[in-house]
Amino acid sequence: MIADKLFKQVEEKGHVCLGLDTDYSYLPAGFAEKFDSAGEAIYNFNKEIIDATWDVVACYKVQIAYYEALGLEGLKAYADTLKYIKEKGSVSIADIKRGDIAKTAEMYAAAHFTGDFEADFVTLNAYMGINDSIEPFLKYVKENDKGIFVLVRTSNKGARDFQFIKDKNGVTLYETVGERLEAMAQENTGKFGFSSIGAVVGATNNEEGASLRNKMKSVFLLIPGYGAQGGKAEDIAVYLINGNGAVVNSSRGILLAYTKEENGHNDFAMCARREAIRMRDDILSHIKEA
Amino acid sequence: MIADKLFKQVEEKGHVCLGLDTDYSYLPAGFAEKFDSAGEAIYNFNKEIIDATWDVVACYKVQIAYYEALGLEGLKAYADTLKYIKEKGSVSIADIKRGDIAKTAEMYAAAHFTGDFEADFVTLNAYMGINDSIEPFLKYVKENDKGIFVLVRTSNKGARDFQFIKDKNGVTLYETVGERLEAMAQENTGKFGFSSIGAVVGATNNEEGASLRNKMKSVFLLIPGYGAQGGKAEDIAVYLINGNGAVVNSSRGILLAYTKEENGHNDFAMCARREAIRMRDDILSHIKEA
Repeated sequence: MIADKLFKQVEEKGHVCLGLDTDYSYLPAGFAEKFDSAGEAIYNFNKEIIDATWDVVACYKVQIAYYEALGLEGLKAYADTLKYIKEKGSVSIADIKRGDIAKTAEMYAAAHFTGDFEADFVTLNAYMGINDSIEPFLKYVKENDKGIFVLVRTSNKGARDFQFIKDKNGVTLYETVGERLEAMAQENTGKFGFSSIGAVVGATNNEEGASLRNKMKSVFLLIPGYGAQGGKAEDIAVYLINGNGAVVNSSRGILLAYTKEENGHNDFAMCARREAIRMRDDILSHIKEA
Repeated sequence: MIADKLFKQVEEKGHVCLGLDTDYSYLPAGFAEKFDSAGEAIYNFNKEIIDATWDVVACYKVQIAYYEALGLEGLKAYADTLKYIKEKGSVSIADIKRGDIAKTAEMYAAAHFTGDFEADFVTLNAYMGINDSIEPFLKYVKENDKGIFVLVRTSNKGARDFQFIKDKNGVTLYETVGERLEAMAQENTGKFGFSSIGAVVGATNNEEGASLRNKMKSVFLLIPGYGAQGGKAEDIAVYLINGNGAVVNSSRGILLAYTKEENGHNDFAMCARREAIRMRDDILSHIKEA
């Protein structure tokens, strides 16, 4: 079960999920010139980052939008990046946030759990309902060692527009989505108590996080927003159960770490490694305090 | 403004939006063998369908999931299909249902409004909020003749899971999303009174539809669910304003029309044309009655 593998990765390597949201503009000066196309340059940048970090991060989240923006050659780089993560023995999360009717969801499941774009986890959006948008992926969760992270309470300000709408009992939309996920997760837990049915939950430093985790004890959490989006290590502890059960994403903070060091562009992968280790230890230190 | 073009297409060619959800299994016996790959076969199937229908349908909706499921060669077929729709002077809707934080949404906008995957409209999911998931696309709506259809009330049963949750004032989530869209649409209407900021609304034969249209008078509507999903022509009239302002999608009903005619597999494109015309006239006849 992929949740068990992710649990072990966290235990051995810490909580960092490295977001490969690799925009072409992130490449160091002179790097792209060494390759025939923007797609190849981006793949090779990712490759060097992965080589320098696979032993200090739990997993990689690849945001497909950045690759789609480069068209077909971008998606070739996306496919190659996922393959390389697999080759290194790490765990990949395809950040695709798909959500559609069942027949279409079946197609998305085939697209991202098999073939060119095969990943270990995908992110999903449940607006169109559980049976349609989520259920078709569960076959792969149960039979093919795959996992999902469903959007529950996202880390952006705009999350409040709809996710915080309360029903007549005072229950927010995101809590309702979370409850439905927890029910499914409880029926599919692995040997460490967590399910491969996970949730995306933004880090917030208050009781809301504790309350949410209390209602969702079986789901693995993917926590975005560390660093560039304002999330802090001290906000993470509340989402962990015995120090595990969540990974924390950082993208730009790690990919662009080289821009903060003198001559960093000559050594971007090692700068990324140092920042990943700093982030890993930052989170670990706050867990120990908690 | 693309909403004006779509309005004229509806006026001249009727309300049919032909869904190119082209699954490989839909190809007639013997067809795929003529081509080197599944992707090429699917593109050529689409091409024949488009050649046979462009003058009797308002637009084409291309569901990207079916192409992603074939990996890179599928996405080549997707790109080629969009290009061919443009070449024929018709209107394309990229059914991608993306929704993410602003920086990622900017990438999706670049991906689907420029380059290999350029389409006239995209479908979007607003769960993560208006400023993040929707706003980054509006630049293209205002400056590049592009349009969006945002999920409001979808046609699937599972829509009830979350879209029907009522806040303390009894307003459903989908109505709240609809109101936000209408406010944006009102500021961006074209010469026929409709905006390129549109909504996806499932056809339902009751007062709910009339009430929703009454609250959203400026948005163009994309109505899925005709035919295979159970929607009927008599349910459409309530969504129209002076007979226009909406397109009605059918995918399998048209693509697989050939399976219902004797020797249809030898003549799949003409079978699709006949079904598209039947559907067009079915809708038009109910508008006249209304």
